[in-house]
Amino acid sequence: MTEPVIPEGILSLDRSSDVSLSEQIYRGFRDAVRKGLLSSGTRLPSTRRLAAMLEVGRNTVNAAYDLLQAEGIIFVRTGAAPRIMNGLPLEGMTHNRSSTARKRSLSKRGILMSDNIRGVGWAFRHGVLQPGAPALDCFPYEEWARCLRRAARLERSPDLQYQNYTGLPALRQQLSRHLAAERGVRADPEQILVTSSMQSSLSLLAQALSDHGDEAWLENPGYLGAKTAFHAAGLKIRPLPTDEDGADVAATDISKSPSKLIYVTPSHHYPLGARMPLARRLALLEAARASGAVILEDDYDSEFLFAGRPVAALYGLAEEGQVIYLGTFSKSLMPGLRVAYCVVPNDLVQPLTQLMRNMGCSANVQAQAALAHFMDSGCYQKHLKQIRQIYRSRGEQLVDTLRSRLGNRIHVEIPTGNVQVSIMFRERIDDVRLAMDLQSHGFAVSPLSNCYLGSDAKSGLIIGFAGATPPQITKGVEILGNLIEAVG
Amino acid sequence: MTEPVIPEGILSLDRSSDVSLSEQIYRGFRDAVRKGLLSSGTRLPSTRRLAAMLEVGRNTVNAAYDLLQAEGIIFVRTGAAPRIMNGLPLEGMTHNRSSTARKRSLSKRGILMSDNIRGVGWAFRHGVLQPGAPALDCFPYEEWARCLRRAARLERSPDLQYQNYTGLPALRQQLSRHLAAERGVRADPEQILVTSSMQSSLSLLAQALSDHGDEAWLENPGYLGAKTAFHAAGLKIRPLPTDEDGADVAATDISKSPSKLIYVTPSHHYPLGARMPLARRLALLEAARASGAVILEDDYDSEFLFAGRPVAALYGLAEEGQVIYLGTFSKSLMPGLRVAYCVVPNDLVQPLTQLMRNMGCSANVQAQAALAHFMDSGCYQKHLKQIRQIYRSRGEQLVDTLRSRLGNRIHVEIPTGNVQVSIMFRERIDDVRLAMDLQSHGFAVSPLSNCYLGSDAKSGLIIGFAGATPPQITKGVEILGNLIEAVG
Repeated sequence: MTEPVIPEGILSLDRSSDVSLSEQIYRGFRDAVRKGLLSSGTRLPSTRRLAAMLEVGRNTVNAAYDLLQAEGIIFVRTGAAPRIMNGLPLEGMTHNRSSTARKRSLSKRGILMSDNIRGVGWAFRHGVLQPGAPALDCFPYEEWARCLRRAARLERSPDLQYQNYTGLPALRQQLSRHLAAERGVRADPEQILVTSSMQSSLSLLAQALSDHGDEAWLENPGYLGAKTAFHAAGLKIRPLPTDEDGADVAATDISKSPSKLIYVTPSHHYPLGARMPLARRLALLEAARASGAVILEDDYDSEFLFAGRPVAALYGLAEEGQVIYLGTFSKSLMPGLRVAYCVVPNDLVQPLTQLMRNMGCSANVQAQAALAHFMDSGCYQKHLKQIRQIYRSRGEQLVDTLRSRLGNRIHVEIPTGNVQVSIMFRERIDDVRLAMDLQSHGFAVSPLSNCYLGSDAKSGLIIGFAGATPPQITKGVEILGNLIEAVG
Repeated sequence: MTEPVIPEGILSLDRSSDVSLSEQIYRGFRDAVRKGLLSSGTRLPSTRRLAAMLEVGRNTVNAAYDLLQAEGIIFVRTGAAPRIMNGLPLEGMTHNRSSTARKRSLSKRGILMSDNIRGVGWAFRHGVLQPGAPALDCFPYEEWARCLRRAARLERSPDLQYQNYTGLPALRQQLSRHLAAERGVRADPEQILVTSSMQSSLSLLAQALSDHGDEAWLENPGYLGAKTAFHAAGLKIRPLPTDEDGADVAATDISKSPSKLIYVTPSHHYPLGARMPLARRLALLEAARASGAVILEDDYDSEFLFAGRPVAALYGLAEEGQVIYLGTFSKSLMPGLRVAYCVVPNDLVQPLTQLMRNMGCSANVQAQAALAHFMDSGCYQKHLKQIRQIYRSRGEQLVDTLRSRLGNRIHVEIPTGNVQVSIMFRERIDDVRLAMDLQSHGFAVSPLSNCYLGSDAKSGLIIGFAGATPPQITKGVEILGNLIEAVG
């Protein structure tokens, strides 16, 4: 009987590869069969013979043959040479394979969900002066690392298994206390759902509380993350007018509209900074009641209202079930933590818990345990106190520098809170173009016009100050000044 | 002028509360106004007078009055008593408030997304012998804690900010090497999207690749997590027949159906354990091509195939774009890590990246950094090697114990991998009822019948062995035996 011949090149082993030699032999044969280089019934060399040919151990070849046999590619009988299995549906497939390769595409829903609606011509890149970015140069890395390590060593409960999809009980307990004391939000720990981000909270709630084609109100100008979540959920977005007191339901027909959701930022309007007075808050609640809508109160920057104590949340004024309160640790700690939360009515706790289990957007358990300890031990309050000072001083420096460089070409107010500030141009300036130009210098400011829902957008920039050091602020404003002078 | 009178009870301070005294005063007045106990124009005591009445410092009252003024609830003029603001739209609201409180409900979509489709009468509770649960008693807590601490101390890059929604580059690099070496999955790091869980991957892909009302195929019996994700996405689920070689496209009309998705577990069929031979794999790829469907290959337990080396993934056999490969760290490390991943075609990378940014289901960045280091330093391979032995021995112990206690009342095979095994009853036994009874003893086994899509469900149990110690296995089987004897 002649020795079986292995076609050239199908078993060229790479001894420096991460892939084991037996795996390489297995794949070589498998691919050769698939490509039609070895046809049904072909005899293969014995393990001894192949091991000698390839200069590998017999066990290596044995392992490869075992796998080929297990996968039904070869058959082996004692005393006979292994052969390629008969009946593999291979013939003619090789040709099809390459010719039918086609572009995979998203569904209609997938296209909605993946739309980039952050503005025409606008592609985000990370950089300095980015809105929403916290001061990572002041983050207590060592303390946080100790909390994480402690959590990872000590937390050995069933909480690490499949459960608590809506948050670790210890963290929800801490949040319940924190929100009651700081924000006037009285909620049982069970009502607080921990998610992997504010965007996740917004998406889940938009999908859970509305159907495709429903109406939702959004402040105009307003937060692009909310617009994105509503758009992805297929909602018709209606602009809620705003002025120096924030959203104004009296300026529109909101109470007559059968809308499902009203998204607002009453503590500190995004992006312009207004604080909503009580009269407006009550009118908003009344309008929501009339229209049957749930209010999503995004309290994104409650920890950073510099002027006096922050106003208590709208949530505390509302009747049960009228307001869902949303918060995040992205600005007080870091976005990479991927921990946010929402406070939901009692009768939605059970269905939303099941929904979170079904959709899978839970936060890392050890980070949650570390955070609970970080809060309980007072580190969080200490950190907040420290960065409030830093944010305030960076915000003032930014505005002072802007005013002295650009004078009355811009309108800007000293920020009363938050981690970013909006400026408006008094001249006609293409803010998207300007922001792109700044990006090319490493600055990630956002164009204000993108936050408007209609055609009457104001031109300006949203500039993050919390994460920027004084030299970065100086340099950024200098470049901004030069760019404006060049176009002005 | 008479002294203003404060109605009884509106300012009862709780000095042991977490809520500051000034906040309590603020809220007391605000709530009193809201309830109509203080009407427009009412004079309030001076700060000095109120401080004396309440036995608090004047600054405490000042802070409360500042906040009331900032929120537009009172007005203050120098030399005059503060008064409740005129024009607050309060009258008549108190009555409405309580009478219109109503139950908030989910949308039609929300109801779909929050359905519990894990079986009638079946409510999951955590416990021993839970399917899918890893051996947390063998988890390297100390090593992992060191990796986490190291990551939290050293990782100070912009990766902690808003970016890398689809995963930390270092982790994707490690995964790319790991998948090529271990699973024959050749993919650029950019093609690997890191999500917060397998359920999150399944939900996102189901929504992104199909529209409400589309068809999707699921192995019968099959994985409930996939069924949940497809159901939540509004898909019509069609049962893909299975036998001892796994899913069998020849037994149905899959290639003629215009389906969008085919979900399979070819390495180790869930829940029955078949390994799909090459002929079946090629037929499956051909049928998917004909029907235009994308295959979701769930390689959930690839790390735990005990018998020989695992078969390479289906992904490696397919043409570009035909198969999306899904993996998770829930079974090899822990569910609480909330890190899973999927490998997607090149032309879907950009839209799915934007989709993940929009939907917000990213994993914690420091856990990702720790995991990248854990893999790079060889700890992951070492851990896998160790638990593979443990899982195998626990699986064998479970089956031996089951056989010696229940003999031929059940059908069970020594597991060839995975962290759980299915047993089937030869008699008619209500497995849901039995599983509930076991739950009441602290054992979280699942009824097998819930995994079937049609009415011809087999009765049995899915029993997790990876996380169970030998005494727990002994006890669980003993109780199971008693329960079966009681009903048999």
